[in-house]
Amino acid sequence: EYAKIDTERTARTGYPEVIYGAGKSAAQITGIVQAMKQHEQPILATRVAADKAAAVLTQEPQLKYDEVAHTLVLSVAPPERIGEIAIVTAGTSDINVAEEAAVTAELFGNEVTRIYDVGVAGIQRLFSKLDLIRRANVVIVIAGMEGALTSVVGGLVDVPVIAVPTSVGYGSHLNGLTPLLSMLNSCAAGISVVNIDNGFGAAYNASMINHLAGGKQK
Amino acid sequence: EYAKIDTERTARTGYPEVIYGAGKSAAQITGIVQAMKQHEQPILATRVAADKAAAVLTQEPQLKYDEVAHTLVLSVAPPERIGEIAIVTAGTSDINVAEEAAVTAELFGNEVTRIYDVGVAGIQRLFSKLDLIRRANVVIVIAGMEGALTSVVGGLVDVPVIAVPTSVGYGSHLNGLTPLLSMLNSCAAGISVVNIDNGFGAAYNASMINHLAGGKQK
Amino acid sequence: EYAKIDTERTARTGYPEVIYGAGKSAAQITGIVQAMKQHEQPILATRVAADKAAAVLTQEPQLKYDEVAHTLVLSVAPPERIGEIAIVTAGTSDINVAEEAAVTAELFGNEVTRIYDVGVAGIQRLFSKLDLIRRANVVIVIAGMEGALTSVVGGLVDVPVIAVPTSVGYGSHLNGLTPLLSMLNSCAAGISVVNIDNGFGAAYNASMINHLAGGKQK
Amino acid sequence: EYAKIDTERTARTGYPEVIYGAGKSAAQITGIVQAMKQHEQPILATRVAADKAAAVLTQEPQLKYDEVAHTLVLSVAPPERIGEIAIVTAGTSDINVAEEAAVTAELFGNEVTRIYDVGVAGIQRLFSKLDLIRRANVVIVIAGMEGALTSVVGGLVDVPVIAVPTSVGYGSHLNGLTPLLSMLNSCAAGISVVNIDNGFGAAYNASMINHLAGGKQK
Amino acid sequence: EYAKIDTERTARTGYPEVIYGAGKSAAQITGIVQAMKQHEQPILATRVAADKAAAVLTQEPQLKYDEVAHTLVLSVAPPERIGEIAIVTAGTSDINVAEEAAVTAELFGNEVTRIYDVGVAGIQRLFSKLDLIRRANVVIVIAGMEGALTSVVGGLVDVPVIAVPTSVGYGSHLNGLTPLLSMLNSCAAGISVVNIDNGFGAAYNASMINHLAGGKQK
Amino acid sequence: EYAKIDTERTARTGYPEVIYGAGKSAAQITGIVQAMKQHEQPILATRVAADKAAAVLTQEPQLKYDEVAHTLVLSVAPPERIGEIAIVTAGTSDINVAEEAAVTAELFGNEVTRIYDVGVAGIQRLFSKLDLIRRANVVIVIAGMEGALTSVVGGLVDVPVIAVPTSVGYGSHLNGLTPLLSMLNSCAAGISVVNIDNGFGAAYNASMINHLAGGKQK
Amino acid sequence: EYAKIDTERTARTGYPEVIYGAGKSAAQITGIVQAMKQHEQPILATRVAADKAAAVLTQEPQLKYDEVAHTLVLSVAPPERIGEIAIVTAGTSDINVAEEAAVTAELFGNEVTRIYDVGVAGIQRLFSKLDLIRRANVVIVIAGMEGALTSVVGGLVDVPVIAVPTSVGYGSHLNGLTPLLSMLNSCAAGISVVNIDNGFGAAYNASMINHLAGGKQK
Amino acid sequence: EYAKIDTERTARTGYPEVIYGAGKSAAQITGIVQAMKQHEQPILATRVAADKAAAVLTQEPQLKYDEVAHTLVLSVAPPERIGEIAIVTAGTSDINVAEEAAVTAELFGNEVTRIYDVGVAGIQRLFSKLDLIRRANVVIVIAGMEGALTSVVGGLVDVPVIAVPTSVGYGSHLNGLTPLLSMLNSCAAGISVVNIDNGFGAAYNASMINHLAGGKQK
Ligand SMILES: Nc1ncnc2c1ncn2[C@@H]1O[C@H](COP(=O)(O)O)[C@@H](O)[C@H]1O
Ligand SMILES: Nc1ncnc2c1ncn2[C@@H]1O[C@H](COP(=O)(O)O)[C@@H](O)[C@H]1O
Ligand SMILES: Nc1ncnc2c1ncn2[C@@H]1O[C@H](COP(=O)(O)O)[C@@H](O)[C@H]1O
Ligand SMILES: Nc1ncnc2c1ncn2[C@@H]1O[C@H](COP(=O)(O)O)[C@@H](O)[C@H]1O
Ligand SMILES: [Mg+2]
Ligand SMILES: [Mg+2]
Ligand SMILES: [Mg+2]
Ligand SMILES: [Mg+2]
Ligand SMILES: [Mg+2]
Ligand SMILES: [Mg+2]
Ligand SMILES: [Mg+2]
Ligand SMILES: [Mg+2]
Repeated sequence: EYAKIDTERTARTGYPEVIYGAGKSAAQITGIVQAMKQHEQPILATRVAADKAAAVLTQEPQLKYDEVAHTLVLSVAPPERIGEIAIVTAGTSDINVAEEAAVTAELFGNEVTRIYDVGVAGIQRLFSKLDLIRRANVVIVIAGMEGALTSVVGGLVDVPVIAVPTSVGYGSHLNGLTPLLSMLNSCAAGISVVNIDNGFGAAYNASMINHLAGGKQK
Repeated sequence: EYAKIDTERTARTGYPEVIYGAGKSAAQITGIVQAMKQHEQPILATRVAADKAAAVLTQEPQLKYDEVAHTLVLSVAPPERIGEIAIVTAGTSDINVAEEAAVTAELFGNEVTRIYDVGVAGIQRLFSKLDLIRRANVVIVIAGMEGALTSVVGGLVDVPVIAVPTSVGYGSHLNGLTPLLSMLNSCAAGISVVNIDNGFGAAYNASMINHLAGGKQK
Repeated sequence: EYAKIDTERTARTGYPEVIYGAGKSAAQITGIVQAMKQHEQPILATRVAADKAAAVLTQEPQLKYDEVAHTLVLSVAPPERIGEIAIVTAGTSDINVAEEAAVTAELFGNEVTRIYDVGVAGIQRLFSKLDLIRRANVVIVIAGMEGALTSVVGGLVDVPVIAVPTSVGYGSHLNGLTPLLSMLNSCAAGISVVNIDNGFGAAYNASMINHLAGGKQK
Repeated sequence: EYAKIDTERTARTGYPEVIYGAGKSAAQITGIVQAMKQHEQPILATRVAADKAAAVLTQEPQLKYDEVAHTLVLSVAPPERIGEIAIVTAGTSDINVAEEAAVTAELFGNEVTRIYDVGVAGIQRLFSKLDLIRRANVVIVIAGMEGALTSVVGGLVDVPVIAVPTSVGYGSHLNGLTPLLSMLNSCAAGISVVNIDNGFGAAYNASMINHLAGGKQK
Repeated sequence: EYAKIDTERTARTGYPEVIYGAGKSAAQITGIVQAMKQHEQPILATRVAADKAAAVLTQEPQLKYDEVAHTLVLSVAPPERIGEIAIVTAGTSDINVAEEAAVTAELFGNEVTRIYDVGVAGIQRLFSKLDLIRRANVVIVIAGMEGALTSVVGGLVDVPVIAVPTSVGYGSHLNGLTPLLSMLNSCAAGISVVNIDNGFGAAYNASMINHLAGGKQK
Repeated sequence: EYAKIDTERTARTGYPEVIYGAGKSAAQITGIVQAMKQHEQPILATRVAADKAAAVLTQEPQLKYDEVAHTLVLSVAPPERIGEIAIVTAGTSDINVAEEAAVTAELFGNEVTRIYDVGVAGIQRLFSKLDLIRRANVVIVIAGMEGALTSVVGGLVDVPVIAVPTSVGYGSHLNGLTPLLSMLNSCAAGISVVNIDNGFGAAYNASMINHLAGGKQK
Repeated sequence: EYAKIDTERTARTGYPEVIYGAGKSAAQITGIVQAMKQHEQPILATRVAADKAAAVLTQEPQLKYDEVAHTLVLSVAPPERIGEIAIVTAGTSDINVAEEAAVTAELFGNEVTRIYDVGVAGIQRLFSKLDLIRRANVVIVIAGMEGALTSVVGGLVDVPVIAVPTSVGYGSHLNGLTPLLSMLNSCAAGISVVNIDNGFGAAYNASMINHLAGGKQK
Repeated sequence: EYAKIDTERTARTGYPEVIYGAGKSAAQITGIVQAMKQHEQPILATRVAADKAAAVLTQEPQLKYDEVAHTLVLSVAPPERIGEIAIVTAGTSDINVAEEAAVTAELFGNEVTRIYDVGVAGIQRLFSKLDLIRRANVVIVIAGMEGALTSVVGGLVDVPVIAVPTSVGYGSHLNGLTPLLSMLNSCAAGISVVNIDNGFGAAYNASMINHLAGGKQK
């Protein structure tokens, strides 16, 4: 059999197994969805291309596909959302990754505030949103190019910052290695980093932190 | 002047500026310590070599030097410690980094549980400590070599894991790049990563999370 | 002429030359197959894409194509299979590489046990299969992402582990360099490594070891 | 002979040849200085370690050694200084590189404004100096760690920014490759980059620009 | 909203925001163009593929598309051009990058002199154009392969050289990393470097310098 | 104009300019060919894809296209061929590069001996051809994978070996960087290296050497 | 406590825990040795520098230090040695690594045949030892530079080859990455690879294989 | 035994084995010298540090040590020198490598012309020596920094150029990888490359070529 679903994961880690769609066929995704449906729990598949999603939906039409986030979701019950998590992007092109994070965070019961295209080339855009950002229990900063936004935000808030480098850039950007390295070497403390384009992973961490905080309003 | 101390940092981020000792002379460290002493706040200098520390201590004898953590500390008042943060290492050689994290976390008011030398080559050592680890609000995993311990812990706990790759290894270890890459690509969710050997940064993040959690006992 | 078949290879190394299909045209593969057929020996071509295989099969229909393993095989006689070799994968997406290994191992006369999708994010899946794995004379561990499964298995068995990093992953995964480096730096002893996605090479090594062991049942 | 002094360089490029001291012996530096003295022009040697400088000074005592900048200078006549060039650093540890730039710029006839330790972790330090920075015809930004200061400054000024990454950092900083890549991929326009720790090169470029601007006061 | 246009940028930096077309849909580019048209200022979009440009032009037909430079331009009024900027390429294949630079420079009010295909393999081609190059206030050198042209030009002119490595090459060229590294390590002073293929960035810097020089004729 | 043909190259270097076809349009190649035809000299264009070649041939039908070498050739007169140059490959898949070398060498007046698919996995294949190889004045060794053939040949001949790494391989092969590094670090002396897949460059060097040797028969 | 000795390791993997001396103090090594002595089993510490060894020996004089292999050994009882394992090096400088392997293999009960300095630059040296090598059940090949010896041996024997790249080399050798990559991409099958300079790891694997083979004489 | 001297090498390759001193002890070097002395042939050891050389000389005083080239030489008889080989360096700091090449070339019977410190920053220095360079049968170009001199020379001569990148540089120079990559990607044909700082290897190749040319005067 091609998959051994980890049915005890919610008990162990608080969250169910999530399907990484990139390396799987539509048939494999469908099969795993069907097996997971037997255990009452939210289902999330990330990195599902539009055509693959269409094929899955013919079999499992109650799933919901998000064309920006590239996610398939089956939500058992509208989860209570506590909050909040701020998702901040440097540019317009980082929005796919940001929405992967947003869909994940909302499914896992978090209020999300979106603050997009506030990169440091025009830093007043960030300052005008600072009150909004400071309301959050945890901030996700998503940036390509050189990722400088992360350090600026990190120096301005008193909660953890989860940094997500993106593959938006060219040349010596090295498909995202440049902002990844940049974020790991930030001169601001309070920043930790996940893999390039890993919106899901950032939201997963942020959700854990927001729930530890009891979603307390600041 | 060689330094502009960021006196508003505690107001802005909840924590005072910390002195990064590696690139500074004893005279510079002493000067910054003296300037900071004027503002009632804990002082922490990291990456201070033993001889440099000795020179600073002749001027500022009330500082306390830790020979394993390589830190200089001036604690205004014994902080209330809430908890807790688990610090887990794969090997014996990762302990310097672990103690940098521990000193930082304790200064910032956190209870710390140390669980050292439980790498996956003898995985039963980890399982025997699992109850202890699961009591923490956040877990710091510190590992050199291939860093596999991170993923195993990540799959077993329901709180955030902050991963610290260390420079312990040789050859294709690339001075810590191997566990850094390994941790960023973990198959377990809930893991975020800081720079190689950055015990301080991990503790800083963990302290923020533990305090958001109100140090609630699990 | 484009190919000099190494007809003495079985005498020298115990195994015939194997056709590496990736860089060759269908015509070249067909030509080499036809030349090899003159010497009574099993024929194996790896990395043959489906359309190229179809073209070869119109000329040499007695070959058997495996759509998961991407192999073309001509087996002179059903070989006696001794055993055994365990093939363990971390995820579902590693199965193509695993089947390349399995087809190779079986053609070379080995019993194969397949244990798929038991990565460390849900480590109990591995433990539930440990008895099965421990029966083998040699274990092939195949993993993408950070490859942590290799070290965990390496710490639990008393036979050689051949590690195969796969290109399954993204971002700082660097097309498989991350698990490759991880496996080379494993904290567990008894692990040696082959190239990224090289299921064939792992099985070739494992077959040599299993035959040295006389396929003795443990 | 070990050196062919390029005596026509001032005619061709506006500036004399400068001695790169790192790879030369004290005897070689002394020899080149003596040869250059015959042509009425300012002499500058960079990257001269203190002990090597001492040896040169015993032979050529009219040279002036700067212990922070690691430069040896012989100034034919106090040059008229026009201006100005702003030199901005992120941290205290970047000052050696900054002073190499300052010594070079002053020798080549430029007014220099030094603004040190204003990195983005405490960004208000930068804003409080913005009027000073904006008076310059060209800004040199010098930063280690992740180099984010460059992009912030780049977004706030209307003159060219010359970025100098420094080797100040550790781990995945890769001895300065991280801020180098970061600066090359800045989301702000108007930034060009020189080699790691190359204060001399930045000042050379800035001097050309400041002189093209006629040192006009803004 | 997907974009926050930085309407104050001209006031702050002297130049309007420029649209980086590579990561945006035709709809997004069109939307940003329409928003920007409300503020009387030149509009420039770079890295717009031909088909995407066609889609934008159906909505905003007054834009002008350049098929070599891959730019979309809306020029409010023919700008006065002062000068001049020399754009020099090593080969024929570097011309796309050169024209991105030329279109940018002309839109920003600079006279441009194009000197193409004068790489050092036939260095007399460069020498025959030297008078032309020396008339400029700033020189942009664009080269792939090993980028040696940059150093040769740098040693022959008395104005700043902005170097642009290109992705023209193969094998160990590493998509432009080789000339990038080469240019950063030039033995000639007076060279600063922008990202691989970044004709826009080079022209932006050159325009700032040319305007500081008052476009004075040499 | 997009190209400045270096018409003095034969006088200077002994060989005419060669058209690097990879980055040029069919129209550009045709234009350069037509300009070069005016100077009586052989014309060679390398890296011309089949469809691009077809377009050029409609305009300049007297050119000859080689579908394995991907070259377009116009030979003014059958050159006298002296010799000889041995071209040795490790595998079947290295033949495209080998034929680029062979076409170049023959056009430049050299006798070529082809010895293909004699890689070290079956080293007796090489030994059986050693007499043939030893007759050459210079040996070109072309290999992908790990490139070990180069060192073995280098230890067995008394003439220069020009090594060409190829992009044939996968995974940690890094598109040819592995054999490139391997060849540069050969334990055998007498080996120099050209860029990955650069059959043309190897033949150019070999031709110079063979002609210096006067094509003397050994 | 700084170390948790894995006392169950022999039961689980057939071999006791081995002390990696590089990152530990003499005091730590001594402490671990003393703890291990309580469980009747052979003790091996690798990578122990001479001065550190001397310090340990003052406390634990029954240990035996090997100045070439840099190992400390305490052998409970002379183990029966079965065999055999061939250890082959390319050069003289690889002998430290080879002896680390030899000491390990002998302690673990294997007959060892040493064949040193037979690299491919003088390949007849290898051929003259081939009968000796072919007697082994497993061959360890140790090479720096480009590591070509591995592929040649791999093509000549019918047992597993464990390849150990060494850090012997300079420049683009990259401290052993070049032979590491070379060995991973070998054109010969039957080769698996361990970390740079990891003689211990190679011997550990070889011992497992030799014992599976029952040390049968070929 | 630690060394198997390849006594047949002169017969096979025309040149005796040369001792690579870097990884060997004085005792090992002395031993090998003594063994080689028994076969009437010139002895050359490269990369011998001054103190190690002194130790060898106490045993073998007839050897000659060169303090710039770091070579030990024993010349059986003054060889006839034919010629010639030009050795060209970009800077003063490349001279150690150049002299390693010169000593090697002279021992192997070649006339050497030294042309040092003619890098492209002052290109007229090169042009003034061009007649001298053009007299050689083969040119060795030795350069650190960006290595641009290689391409310029390559475009000006009609004989093979052997390029030697040196480790002279800093920052993104990467210890010589930058000029290595630069030389491999030269836009001039007729260049082949050896390892970083490998003066010996360049001279070995050049000697082969010069002797094939019969040392004919041009
Ligand atoms: N060990 C450390 N690793 C990384 N960052 C640190 C470390 N210690 C202090 N820092 C950070 O470095 C900043 C001080 O930098 P500096 O101005 O150079 O002293 C502090 O604000 C901390 O955020
Ligand atoms: N999937 C594979 N990965 C690595 N090596 C392979 C693979 N398949 C075949 N080979 C090896 O490649 C050699 C054939 O190379 P070639 O002469 O190019 O066909 C065979 O002798 C095998 O040892
Ligand atoms: N070709 C280009 N290369 C680098 N940066 C560019 C380019 N074109 C535009 N930009 C910059 O990218 C910024 C816009 O980013 P975005 O918000 O993603 O549209 C602009 O402010 C420009 O400074
Ligand atoms: N396959 C090739 N690989 C490397 N260089 C080449 C190749 N073919 C032609 N060249 C070189 O590229 C130069 C022409 O470059 P370009 O001006 O861009 O056409 C010629 O002078 C040749 O030296
Ligand atoms: Mg934007
Ligand atoms: Mg341990
Ligand atoms: Mg799974
Ligand atoms: Mg500071
Ligand atoms: Mg051209
Ligand atoms: Mg073959
Ligand atoms: Mg030897
Ligand atoms: Mg010089």
